[in-house]
Amino acid sequence: MIDINIRPCDNSLLEALQHKINSKTKPAGALGMLESIALQVGLIQNTLTPALLSPNMVVFAADHGIANEGVSAYPQEVTGQMVLNFLSGGAAINVFCRQHGIELAVVDAGVTSELPAHPLLIDKKMGAGTDNFLFGPAMTQKQCEQALMAGMKIVEEIADKGCNIIGFGEMGIGNTSAASMLTHILCDIPLLHCVGKGTGLDDDQRRKKLSVLEQASQFHRLTPDADPIQVLSTFGGFEIAMMTGAMLKAAQKRIIILVDGFIASAAFLAAHALQPTILAYSFFTHLSEEQGHIKAMEFLRVRPILQLNMRLGEGTGAAIAYPIIQSAVNFLNEMASFEEARVSTKFN
Amino acid sequence: MIDINIRPCDNSLLEALQHKINSKTKPAGALGMLESIALQVGLIQNTLTPALLSPNMVVFAADHGIANEGVSAYPQEVTGQMVLNFLSGGAAINVFCRQHGIELAVVDAGVTSELPAHPLLIDKKMGAGTDNFLFGPAMTQKQCEQALMAGMKIVEEIADKGCNIIGFGEMGIGNTSAASMLTHILCDIPLLHCVGKGTGLDDDQRRKKLSVLEQASQFHRLTPDADPIQVLSTFGGFEIAMMTGAMLKAAQKRIIILVDGFIASAAFLAAHALQPTILAYSFFTHLSEEQGHIKAMEFLRVRPILQLNMRLGEGTGAAIAYPIIQSAVNFLNEMASFEEARVSTKFN
Repeated sequence: MIDINIRPCDNSLLEALQHKINSKTKPAGALGMLESIALQVGLIQNTLTPALLSPNMVVFAADHGIANEGVSAYPQEVTGQMVLNFLSGGAAINVFCRQHGIELAVVDAGVTSELPAHPLLIDKKMGAGTDNFLFGPAMTQKQCEQALMAGMKIVEEIADKGCNIIGFGEMGIGNTSAASMLTHILCDIPLLHCVGKGTGLDDDQRRKKLSVLEQASQFHRLTPDADPIQVLSTFGGFEIAMMTGAMLKAAQKRIIILVDGFIASAAFLAAHALQPTILAYSFFTHLSEEQGHIKAMEFLRVRPILQLNMRLGEGTGAAIAYPIIQSAVNFLNEMASFEEARVSTKFN
Repeated sequence: MIDINIRPCDNSLLEALQHKINSKTKPAGALGMLESIALQVGLIQNTLTPALLSPNMVVFAADHGIANEGVSAYPQEVTGQMVLNFLSGGAAINVFCRQHGIELAVVDAGVTSELPAHPLLIDKKMGAGTDNFLFGPAMTQKQCEQALMAGMKIVEEIADKGCNIIGFGEMGIGNTSAASMLTHILCDIPLLHCVGKGTGLDDDQRRKKLSVLEQASQFHRLTPDADPIQVLSTFGGFEIAMMTGAMLKAAQKRIIILVDGFIASAAFLAAHALQPTILAYSFFTHLSEEQGHIKAMEFLRVRPILQLNMRLGEGTGAAIAYPIIQSAVNFLNEMASFEEARVSTKFN
């Protein structure tokens, strides 16, 4: 059984942080979202002088049995091929991690193809993809718990290296279907609003995907009050379950969580259903083009940092948003106060 | 007279750039706005391998006669005080430029207070602030042309150092009033929609600001077909006119223009009225909280990169958006193609 307890943030510095933000040489609130980010980072780290240390990005990869139903625009072998692309440094996430000095690790959570040993690759293969959830659960409850624990272990090891901020991304052909099902159940939103065009389906293909997922929904008949572990086991994604565990462990360790797009948010929804306090440790880095993502953000009542119409996954949104989190930390630490700079304050 | 001619971008590489973007290991369009940014930078630089060189930020500062009418939440001496804050490195723009390796220069375009010589300060003082446009034009047409030329000169000197991307920011107590008037006239939008709370007016103060600006509008009775130089002279801002000239010169030199928020966009509107081709060289870096800015963006039919509810000016939005432009350039240069990475392409 998963036994994890995420403490709420210690809010004792809330006023002092807000005062520090307001004393900076700018009109109150003029840095907008950067101010709320700075406040949240200060609360997570429980300090007036927060710092981002050894940023890491973990990309969880796995295959999905549901991919056999033609729900993706790409063949399933692309999952393994893209992992190789990550390992050789040619994918978008490599580019953006290099740009921002973010350390990248790729997790084989259950890719169908065999992958070579590589310094960037963490082998946690749970099997050659999940089962097809159209005819049964994607994984057993036991597998789901194993995946959660594997994710926790990964974060523990990263934390031991002094990291206090982790981006969570994924790769898995078919995983927008899994994310759609999780969002549908965990947010109690009609499936129609949770199904998008994924990697680039046309309208007919998207209708087919919706119809497949409707069948799966009818077959399993899970309701929002179902055990989150059961929901996760049913619609799976080994990479999603592992990410859920990883996020839970990160929050427990007061590590800042950068949630990428639709699939990472689905993993987050499961984590949130288990431990709602995780929200205080998390930033939603961008609003995906996938329509289900908007619904998930509304459900969580959060506002993503970026809206760039991205829909790539891999953690790319989290990587792109990273310098904005850094800007928030920097202004809090480095800007002069009105007093220090001898700038007159507001009238009245 | 201002004699400047901005060539349209040479679009001969359009197809080749789009092909390069589409061949990258990602679904077509999956990097959203990063893809359109990459395309635009490629067109501006007329190359398939663009690069951002020696990024600069120029912050234009000046005072405004209209500030005497109580249109700002801060006293006028804050303009000079904030310039000193820029020079000593304590303002938000200093923090963000340091973060991203952007070289900062501050221009005294007409600050009321005397400012000391400083390596970061470019002295182009046109006078101790503009005249109050409630009773006459803010500056003479000749002054306006001098300011435009001074801005052009600044960009020429920066270009000579090998820079190909410049952010444009400003500081000037009262300058949201000037920007509101320019937006009102140049976009032909009711003043009501162009007036916001600036640095933090309350509702009563904002109503007073609107009433003052309505009087000014009645007094001058300028229409959208007026000579842009006349509009700029009338409502001024030495820093705004200088920024207009600087932007025009940047585009002429095929330098990427990063437009900050409401005031920088008002300067851009004047530049655009003179030379509409400037649009192709420009990125609108963030959507300001000032409501007039939304209208200006709609008028130009452009979409700002960030929406972070910022309203500080100084070029802060441009600095925060800079790494996103860099990400766009990096993915174009560094990502593997499907062929290079041996990744299967889409079905059909």
